Amino acid sequence: MPGGGKGRWVQGFSEGSREMRDLLGGKGAGIAEMTRVLGAERVPAGFTITTEASVAYMKADGEMPAGLEGEVDDALAGLEEASGKRLGDPDDPLLVSVRSGARVSMPGMLDTVLNLGLNDRSVEGLAARTDDGRFAWDAHRRFVQMFGVVVSGIPAPLFESQLRAIRDEHGAERDSDLEEAPLRELTAGFKRTFAEETGGQFPADPKEQLWRAIAAVFDSWNGRRAVAYRRLNGIPDEWGTAVNVQQMVFGNRGATSGSGVAFSRDERTGEPSPSGDFLANAQGEDVVAGTRDPMDLADLAERLPEAYADLIEILTKLERHYGDMQDVEFTVENGRLYLLQTRAAKRPAQAAVRFASDAVDEQLLSREEALTTIDADALEALLHPIFDPDFEVTELTSGIAASPGAARGAVALSSAEAIRRARRGEDVILVRQFTEADDVEGFAAARGILTAEGGKASHAALVARGMGRPCVAGASALRIDGDAGVVRVGETELREGDFVAIEGSTGTVTLDDVPLVEPEISAGFARVLEWSDELRTLGVRANADTPTDAEKAIELGAEGIGLCRTEHMFFGEDRTDLVRGMFIAAERWRRAQAESDGGEDELVETTRTEFEGALAQLGELQRADLTTMLERMRGRPVTVRLLDPPLHEFLPLEHFEGELREAESSADEAKVDEAREQVEIARDLEETNPMIGTRGVRLAVLYPQVYEMQVRALIGAAAAAAEGGTPPHVEIMVPLVAYETELQQLREVVEGAAEATMAELGVEIPYSVGTMIELPRACLVADRLAASADFFSFGTNDLTQTVLGFSRDDVEGSFLPIYLERRIIDRSPFETLDGPGVGRLIELAVESGRGSNPEIALGVCGEHGGDPASVRFFHEAGLDYVSCSPYRVPIARVAAAQAAVADST
Amino acid sequence: MPGGGKGRWVQGFSEGSREMRDLLGGKGAGIAEMTRVLGAERVPAGFTITTEASVAYMKADGEMPAGLEGEVDDALAGLEEASGKRLGDPDDPLLVSVRSGARVSMPGMLDTVLNLGLNDRSVEGLAARTDDGRFAWDAHRRFVQMFGVVVSGIPAPLFESQLRAIRDEHGAERDSDLEEAPLRELTAGFKRTFAEETGGQFPADPKEQLWRAIAAVFDSWNGRRAVAYRRLNGIPDEWGTAVNVQQMVFGNRGATSGSGVAFSRDERTGEPSPSGDFLANAQGEDVVAGTRDPMDLADLAERLPEAYADLIEILTKLERHYGDMQDVEFTVENGRLYLLQTRAAKRPAQAAVRFASDAVDEQLLSREEALTTIDADALEALLHPIFDPDFEVTELTSGIAASPGAARGAVALSSAEAIRRARRGEDVILVRQFTEADDVEGFAAARGILTAEGGKASHAALVARGMGRPCVAGASALRIDGDAGVVRVGETELREGDFVAIEGSTGTVTLDDVPLVEPEISAGFARVLEWSDELRTLGVRANADTPTDAEKAIELGAEGIGLCRTEHMFFGEDRTDLVRGMFIAAERWRRAQAESDGGEDELVETTRTEFEGALAQLGELQRADLTTMLERMRGRPVTVRLLDPPLHEFLPLEHFEGELREAESSADEAKVDEAREQVEIARDLEETNPMIGTRGVRLAVLYPQVYEMQVRALIGAAAAAAEGGTPPHVEIMVPLVAYETELQQLREVVEGAAEATMAELGVEIPYSVGTMIELPRACLVADRLAASADFFSFGTNDLTQTVLGFSRDDVEGSFLPIYLERRIIDRSPFETLDGPGVGRLIELAVESGRGSNPEIALGVCGEHGGDPASVRFFHEAGLDYVSCSPYRVPIARVAAAQAAVADST
Repeated sequence: MPGGGKGRWVQGFSEGSREMRDLLGGKGAGIAEMTRVLGAERVPAGFTITTEASVAYMKADGEMPAGLEGEVDDALAGLEEASGKRLGDPDDPLLVSVRSGARVSMPGMLDTVLNLGLNDRSVEGLAARTDDGRFAWDAHRRFVQMFGVVVSGIPAPLFESQLRAIRDEHGAERDSDLEEAPLRELTAGFKRTFAEETGGQFPADPKEQLWRAIAAVFDSWNGRRAVAYRRLNGIPDEWGTAVNVQQMVFGNRGATSGSGVAFSRDERTGEPSPSGDFLANAQGEDVVAGTRDPMDLADLAERLPEAYADLIEILTKLERHYGDMQDVEFTVENGRLYLLQTRAAKRPAQAAVRFASDAVDEQLLSREEALTTIDADALEALLHPIFDPDFEVTELTSGIAASPGAARGAVALSSAEAIRRARRGEDVILVRQFTEADDVEGFAAARGILTAEGGKASHAALVARGMGRPCVAGASALRIDGDAGVVRVGETELREGDFVAIEGSTGTVTLDDVPLVEPEISAGFARVLEWSDELRTLGVRANADTPTDAEKAIELGAEGIGLCRTEHMFFGEDRTDLVRGMFIAAERWRRAQAESDGGEDELVETTRTEFEGALAQLGELQRADLTTMLERMRGRPVTVRLLDPPLHEFLPLEHFEGELREAESSADEAKVDEAREQVEIARDLEETNPMIGTRGVRLAVLYPQVYEMQVRALIGAAAAAAEGGTPPHVEIMVPLVAYETELQQLREVVEGAAEATMAELGVEIPYSVGTMIELPRACLVADRLAASADFFSFGTNDLTQTVLGFSRDDVEGSFLPIYLERRIIDRSPFETLDGPGVGRLIELAVESGRGSNPEIALGVCGEHGGDPASVRFFHEAGLDYVSCSPYRVPIARVAAAQAAVADST
Repeated sequence: MPGGGKGRWVQGFSEGSREMRDLLGGKGAGIAEMTRVLGAERVPAGFTITTEASVAYMKADGEMPAGLEGEVDDALAGLEEASGKRLGDPDDPLLVSVRSGARVSMPGMLDTVLNLGLNDRSVEGLAARTDDGRFAWDAHRRFVQMFGVVVSGIPAPLFESQLRAIRDEHGAERDSDLEEAPLRELTAGFKRTFAEETGGQFPADPKEQLWRAIAAVFDSWNGRRAVAYRRLNGIPDEWGTAVNVQQMVFGNRGATSGSGVAFSRDERTGEPSPSGDFLANAQGEDVVAGTRDPMDLADLAERLPEAYADLIEILTKLERHYGDMQDVEFTVENGRLYLLQTRAAKRPAQAAVRFASDAVDEQLLSREEALTTIDADALEALLHPIFDPDFEVTELTSGIAASPGAARGAVALSSAEAIRRARRGEDVILVRQFTEADDVEGFAAARGILTAEGGKASHAALVARGMGRPCVAGASALRIDGDAGVVRVGETELREGDFVAIEGSTGTVTLDDVPLVEPEISAGFARVLEWSDELRTLGVRANADTPTDAEKAIELGAEGIGLCRTEHMFFGEDRTDLVRGMFIAAERWRRAQAESDGGEDELVETTRTEFEGALAQLGELQRADLTTMLERMRGRPVTVRLLDPPLHEFLPLEHFEGELREAESSADEAKVDEAREQVEIARDLEETNPMIGTRGVRLAVLYPQVYEMQVRALIGAAAAAAEGGTPPHVEIMVPLVAYETELQQLREVVEGAAEATMAELGVEIPYSVGTMIELPRACLVADRLAASADFFSFGTNDLTQTVLGFSRDDVEGSFLPIYLERRIIDRSPFETLDGPGVGRLIELAVESGRGSNPEIALGVCGEHGGDPASVRFFHEAGLDYVSCSPYRVPIARVAAAQAAVADST
């Protein structure tokens, strides 16, 4: 059954199709589909061991499921029959590759063994049969090397150093320059290394080779690299990986052979011309590893015109067939083209956008289909800054433009260092000779990646693009000395922490302090956003506290402000003293009242006057700020959240302790007394768990005057803004509500202040009053809250904190990374909404809130509003809008459209 | 319609019955029922304005509902016809009382006006008609005084001082010694005061008097005293109060008249002999106020034997009729007995228990009925300490034994001071001349109450009993000077803050430092508990961390330990250094591993050795502790919670800073380095919100070794305890679980350690593994958790904190009191379970947990497990058991039985 037959665990290539991804893995399904579309002559025969077998293997703690062995034997027999070769045949051995293939592509994360089936006897047969001893021994040394590293876990450098030594000894520039004799010698050396490292001989039996390779592929699913990758990409741990066993074709048979990767369109820009890399006289792994500089696809046209023409035709065929940009692996053996894999091309955001736009023009895809080819999350890259075009950059060196966008930061020479610095809040550029799967976490921490080796298909380039990180690869002038912590470029010496800037769209590397500027939105991107706005049903607003942010938000397509945090207006340089004075007076007033047992006395009077005076001043400033904000928003809705943070954030103890020390040194007794009282107040207001302490509406129950002031300022601002002609759209939001009585009482306060202000100003300003839903209780009594609310806005950040009992400040730096590592969670719940917990409560609240008040408007204003997976959840939950940071607004627009498309299909 | 007629808002006394409490209020329903049972000749006629009218009045912001006026006119006309008197008749005026009456009794909290209908003309008619000018003018001055205080809000002392002055002037010892002339003079003075204070003349029109009195009663529902009382007693704000208008009978008609209160059994002990107080020649309010020393009920037998005999007969009749101990108000007018009110007697716990036990013996009630007459919450009083009987107490003075139990603490002369001191953590004895409704909050804060005036029916006595606070009343030797903050007893002078001890069962007051001892459980109480155990279906366990607590718990009837907090074993004097050393080593090891990037080096080795050494030592200590615990529990279930608190609780920064200063002064560089590292570690571990930070299972993910150590210790302890012959019943509980993966992983750790220990010891110890459900997410994914849990224990304290976002440490002292005051909440959610929020989540978890694992055991181990209202909720939610502090175990047993009885009826 190479092309035929289906077993419980094994399935021949000719039996499968693209729909069978879940069972066959992406690679297996791709090979099967190619076999169907291109015919068996273009795709070497073989079979897939299914993901179900892998899952069974994992569940049985590493025991092969019953029946698998027999099915593999059968499939192998079929393959031997079809190829006319036998595994282990000393005269004409069948060689196979053993490759992993999960449901979704995890490039470089899982393991592969090539040239399997060789031993000291069959290698001679192969040499004789092909009349090419160099080729046969090259295949053999490759096999021993890969088997050693992949299956037996021997450190790769132990082989690489021998290869380097032999090259040097024989004056060979490249591996392909080595002749048969040194390759024989090398293979023997490799086997010795194998024996030393494993304490056993290299297995000569091809069946043993095969089973050990299959187990290694299964095991690689739970390797550290694969786990880290899955975590970053939200891939469930329980999927497992298929194993593909395929007859070898050989790119290492000389000058008319080679291996390469190709994209159906330019993989960097999405322009409609195929691109890729090709290495002559090489096997596939040489290309992917990125350790040798490949030739461009265009060069292949000159070198092997027939194979090139076939490749271009096949690329077009596959792209049309799949309706998506393709990324293929191919091998040319003695001039004949074979396809080894096809998959949807990973592409940077601009290429994704360009493809989507072109595909609609070319009538390849409908708008809906085109939209779904875009990874909304990656669009952030398009919103990344670029080098200021007006700045004359002095290039230090340059490399390959491997992932677009510009970045600046401190040099870090290891992922560990990048993570350390990023945790300290530094912008970091990860600088490496080349990157490996182990570096994935370093990519996440870094602003950009710079490597000395590798091309556009190198690991660094692929991962950087996937993660939306700018990357310059193959900057070969770099001399990196990791141990010394130094990078040299000619005379220049960079140490860890030194400044560097890279531009991933041009390959430029510079030490200039070049400013970054925001990118323009391309025509293609603009079209995609336009379609998104037409297709989506979910509204998209932005969280913005300043007029600048608000303008950026509108520019990026926000329909309004879903969250304007008024307290940010309290923190300005010129306001700190005023705000402190206000709260100190407020507390002194409250204390004076308590002392006087509700009655009036002089202290009550003076403290109240002080408090009210400070409120009036602050109210003026707040009104001015809000006026600008409302004017800029020109009638778009603006949700203004009343004061939220704990009081002590405005009354830092150290500040007052400093003032007390100063007062004491001045020996002015009245001052000392005053300062001492302030210290006492600040100390009393300190809280053990401020996140769940006296904040939000609780503050307002203590000091309704503060909310009154804010509402008066807001209504005053709205009246001023209305004079411009466009009536502002004001929504007043009460935070941290747990009890319906809180909302009822504060709604009265808000309405009272609003009505009074309108009466004073002789204006009529429509406004609505709603609440943030950010506590579990609020979700559970949403029906009661909805009776007093015109709108709900789910504050998913705080809701996540209380539903999970995770203090964001505390857990992100402590156990959350370890939870990811130990696979307790797949994603941080602060990035993607926790569905079963937080999401479930939101669903309950939506249902009961709408049940009690069908007119209620429902939105989200936590950071999840800009995360595509969460946006999809919010769409499905039936919310009216999401609100996110201005820079994520375009992502939310596309994600909302994708959710609507998914919903309607 | 005095006895007849039912209107929309008004109903005659003869129309109602006991079932109509909600509509007529407790007093109205009681009067109506008495009218039915005793006949109209024993109960003065009148009518009730319903609670619905009061609710309508409140909703209309103080406007009387339409139709009410006409109905009151009709009812009044009926009353006039029946009595043959007319309101305001100058010759023979009808006088009425206007009294509040809510659904449940709120003694002294709502307002009453007596003798309404008098004016300068009708008082002369009354005098003529009764031929008793003194009586008529006494009634008139009382009316003006009560109307002034209750309806017009004039401060009572303005009237009292005039009364005192007139008494002094005329050499009258008591009010009843005043003759007609001084009473005329006094009435005139009262009216002048009224005019001065209100700026208007005293209303002469009886209809105006009536309507203003009705409005005042309605308004009194929202008075500060009433609100405070409702809050303390969990009475909903929206119930409102009825108003009863009743023809006056006069206890102030001379020596054969008087007013009193009586209980069908001894109100202090529950013994089957009626008790009560009687004031001759007085109206009812004089008795309740407790400002005059009343005579005992026995004295009434001598003075007015016929009235006394009637009263005893009626008490028996009413008790049988109601099936509960009764508390009546009565008046004797010229030797004839009238009943003014009957209600279930408030009684201290021992009386409640005695009554319940006797009532079953007397076949008055079934066991189930008897149980429901007990206020489970109040049973705590029976569990209060008493003076050590072996201690020879030197009595400072004594008073009336007004509410049982002993208390010791600092003298506080005002409720405000009592609250202040209690907030600082002091035990307080509230010492007052007499108490008023305003003092209710002071009662709550105090350990005990001591008054100079008043008897067993005084406000102080009633409220103290209701709240389970020991009280000594009427200790007349006390000379209290509130302004000076001094209490004198003869030569002895006590200042605020000085020590005093009281014994409310004997009336003893002492300055001796007398030890308090736990009370024995009475035979009656034992019977009640026995019935409870037979009737209840909910299990009752105790939270206990020490063998002493565990023994106390068993003694009080706990069936097991529902929560044993192992960390309490970490805090012993001798263990602090060991525990600190362990966690410092653990952190150093973790850091060393991170630095070495997973590999091994010397530092990794030494830190691990240190960590493991400390763990082994601590494990030994923990094993010893747990052995004692398990031995004492003799096979009863013991739920052992693995380590829960945040790491930094064990590593206080100040401690290490102190050590650093010490090291620096020693100039030993190695020591300084070590101390500096420890300070750094402690500082790194500080958290912004430790309650929702790195604690519980999160610690165990960081350091599974700690849980392994604890499980090894526990299994070792179980093996040792099993040698005693009774196999221990061990339940291992993982705290703070949010994700099913946490529980899965830690269950593996627990099972691994348990199996290994059993193998080492060659024993087989059955154990179960479960989790605390104390995060909202845990409730929402209970089905997933139940798959890996043998039991759930709801940790309602922490669950309340996260569901509501209330940090208990922070909110109880800040906004929670204000929330109660502003009526945002009725009860603290930390005392009685928040049903709509926390309760709803528990219901969801019970349903989905049982759905996924029908065998799962479900319990509660938060403090709510000892709160009767919450116990009822847990019973209805279908839990298997509650666990509470040992002293609340009997309460939980009774409450659980009451819930079962309520459930089956």
